[in-house]
Amino acid sequence: AAAAAAAAAKDPYASDPARHPALIARSMRPYNGETPGSLLAAAPITPNDIFFTRNHLPVPHLDAEAFRLRVEGEGTRALEFSLEELKTRFRKHSVTATVQCTGNRRNEMSAVKPVKGLEWDQGAIGTAVWSGVRLRDVLRALGSRGLGSRVWRPPAPALTLCCSPVPRLPAAMRLLALRAAGLSEEDPLVKHIIFEGADKDATTGDVYGASIPVSKALAADGDVLLAYEMNGQPLSKDHGFPLRVIVPGVTGARSVKWLNRIVASQYESGSHWQQRDYKSFCPSVDWDSVEWGSAPAIQEPPVTSAITEPAPGTPLSAADGEITIRGYAWSGGGRGIVRVDVSTDGGRSWAPARLLPPPPGAPPPGSYSGAWAWTLWETTVPLPKPSADGSLPPAVELVCKAVDASYNSQPDGVAGIWNLRGVVNNAWHRVKLDLEP
Amino acid sequence: AAAAAAAAAKDPYASDPARHPALIARSMRPYNGETPGSLLAAAPITPNDIFFTRNHLPVPHLDAEAFRLRVEGEGTRALEFSLEELKTRFRKHSVTATVQCTGNRRNEMSAVKPVKGLEWDQGAIGTAVWSGVRLRDVLRALGSRGLGSRVWRPPAPALTLCCSPVPRLPAAMRLLALRAAGLSEEDPLVKHIIFEGADKDATTGDVYGASIPVSKALAADGDVLLAYEMNGQPLSKDHGFPLRVIVPGVTGARSVKWLNRIVASQYESGSHWQQRDYKSFCPSVDWDSVEWGSAPAIQEPPVTSAITEPAPGTPLSAADGEITIRGYAWSGGGRGIVRVDVSTDGGRSWAPARLLPPPPGAPPPGSYSGAWAWTLWETTVPLPKPSADGSLPPAVELVCKAVDASYNSQPDGVAGIWNLRGVVNNAWHRVKLDLEP
Ligand SMILES: [Mo]
Ligand SMILES: [Mo]
Repeated sequence: AAAAAAAAAKDPYASDPARHPALIARSMRPYNGETPGSLLAAAPITPNDIFFTRNHLPVPHLDAEAFRLRVEGEGTRALEFSLEELKTRFRKHSVTATVQCTGNRRNEMSAVKPVKGLEWDQGAIGTAVWSGVRLRDVLRALGSRGLGSRVWRPPAPALTLCCSPVPRLPAAMRLLALRAAGLSEEDPLVKHIIFEGADKDATTGDVYGASIPVSKALAADGDVLLAYEMNGQPLSKDHGFPLRVIVPGVTGARSVKWLNRIVASQYESGSHWQQRDYKSFCPSVDWDSVEWGSAPAIQEPPVTSAITEPAPGTPLSAADGEITIRGYAWSGGGRGIVRVDVSTDGGRSWAPARLLPPPPGAPPPGSYSGAWAWTLWETTVPLPKPSADGSLPPAVELVCKAVDASYNSQPDGVAGIWNLRGVVNNAWHRVKLDLEP
Repeated sequence: AAAAAAAAAKDPYASDPARHPALIARSMRPYNGETPGSLLAAAPITPNDIFFTRNHLPVPHLDAEAFRLRVEGEGTRALEFSLEELKTRFRKHSVTATVQCTGNRRNEMSAVKPVKGLEWDQGAIGTAVWSGVRLRDVLRALGSRGLGSRVWRPPAPALTLCCSPVPRLPAAMRLLALRAAGLSEEDPLVKHIIFEGADKDATTGDVYGASIPVSKALAADGDVLLAYEMNGQPLSKDHGFPLRVIVPGVTGARSVKWLNRIVASQYESGSHWQQRDYKSFCPSVDWDSVEWGSAPAIQEPPVTSAITEPAPGTPLSAADGEITIRGYAWSGGGRGIVRVDVSTDGGRSWAPARLLPPPPGAPPPGSYSGAWAWTLWETTVPLPKPSADGSLPPAVELVCKAVDASYNSQPDGVAGIWNLRGVVNNAWHRVKLDLEP
């Protein structure tokens, strides 16, 4: 143990877990790896061991027995829950949701002009059935003390108060609880729910953190989970063991892994990742001129889609006559996918693809809300035929673009949405293939 | 009166109200007129008399005294409210909201390939402070009978039941009311709220109708109004006197004017405008191949923006050195405008415009939710200078594009979103101007 500690002091990544060899590593310290296209859209639920991993810091090694989640309001005393307490005091709830890294498809932005960040292709996205307790239920427990029985449910026996009992519920918490119960329309003083992970920068001491608006956290149909299971298995170390947040319909950076603290606050998370990262700017803004405070932190991402098969550069044989194209489409905010259009001529003409049935637990494509999971699609299209003189175009450019339930669509090109951090790239996705006779 | 009736029988549009001469008429029977660009972004609140008018049928002439709103659930008895009852039994509420016709900017689609519909330029949009009662409160009254005091507020004396009292609340209504009060998470049987207007097609007998999802209708922060005032004045005849729906963040077609019936239903409105209009399809779909059932009815529209000044074709003098550009930006679902980028070189380079303060009652630009009103913007940019040999480009192409709080942006071109009905055009907005020395 002393030797391991010494090794960790020298290299905090030395004790990171092993990863599936199929994952395509984009960095090792911290580890970041994506799912290859051929496996990505093979099934609506992504297997745990090939689900993309996005780590900002070394993987913390947490003990499920000793683990405590601290939940507090600004200026209030805190509650603490063991994993067992969370599992037994709150109802278990499952949500089928896609998680996507904010930098997914960044490599297409770099191709236009260099950006800072991991060179993700289109595989920093995956879909799982997440199970755990509702954040909303846990926050209501926080707000319940001092409120009448119509808000408070049957008492949770022996809540672990880490300090002495709070004599009177502060106004912020009271409003939070009232609003959670739909009993007040006053503006709550609580505006954000802050999450902190156990992953820590050994040098600066900073822990990973993020926040979401309180309206999302408390909405009955917001489905925000404190998840301890992924596809029926306990979370793996890379995916946040023993507890992580899942914020459906919101960019991956807010689904904090190794969660150990929640704060109901008047303010957003002050973390680097909330304040000076995961924001997009005008293409003219560079690292000298960027004003981080001028853009809101990315929460819901825009509608996107990608071709996962065939891979770029796959040689096509015109003699085959046709080709089958597969991919995914997804949008933020639970806005379902209405349509995916595919082009084989670089975007001059289009035909709609066939939308595949949703994963278990997800609503049908095109739903106005609650569509937290991606829509897989496929289509089989004719390849160009040789002209009278036997000539063929040397290459085919496949393109896809999706439309969501708000009828938002994807921008045609990357240039107009290029940003210095290379985030939220949702331009039409293009795959070039050589055409052989 | 007999003469007027005879005239109306011959021409149901003969008694339509007079319109402000500044409105640009796009059709007369029914009347449709838009606000000219020079007046559109002059102030964050659009004056009533130049607010765009979109009529589908002749304007009905309703008597405020005799007016009754009928509110019913599928298979339940109905409630009726006079205008006075609505005003006195429910709290008055105001919402600052932009309303936009689904076909706004259709003329740019027609320029790519002909579409069916009114040739709107960018002026079928406007913003007002709407006042009335919350739809949610009225629906709760419908659902309240038979529920305990924790749902039911202080009793509304003598509700006008048009038939005998309902002995027991049907399950659908009970669930509706429970959900409205945030007390149940079961799926309600009620899925849509249907609106019917008093405007009627004299030939077919059809009345204008539309519906919205029940989640929008009941959300505490959905802000759906039954409005009787527009900017502090009673609604004018063209804008729905005496009562209309305002569905903030949703396309104009659902904000039914001359409202006289509300039905809580398991089904969407069966109207032509909900089922076979106001939907968008793949650009390859034409009037022979369209399957109306394959696309959802447009509810939230996508992020859009437009240049309102200068007008296309305005001659520019390079000697002026610079030009001031003004416009609006708006998105569906209450997603605030984060940024507007402006280009003077056809979209090759961009600079962010200055976002103007929100209209009274609206949250600041960039808000994640509740941003029902547009964001006006302006910017002053340099004009091209003559090159060494004194030559100037003959024209300047101004372009604008907006980003909303979900980081959705506008598609670069019209071709990829072209649709046979010419709706939800939100491509980058382009204005060409001749450049003189
Ligand atoms: Mo990320
Ligand atoms: Mo419309």
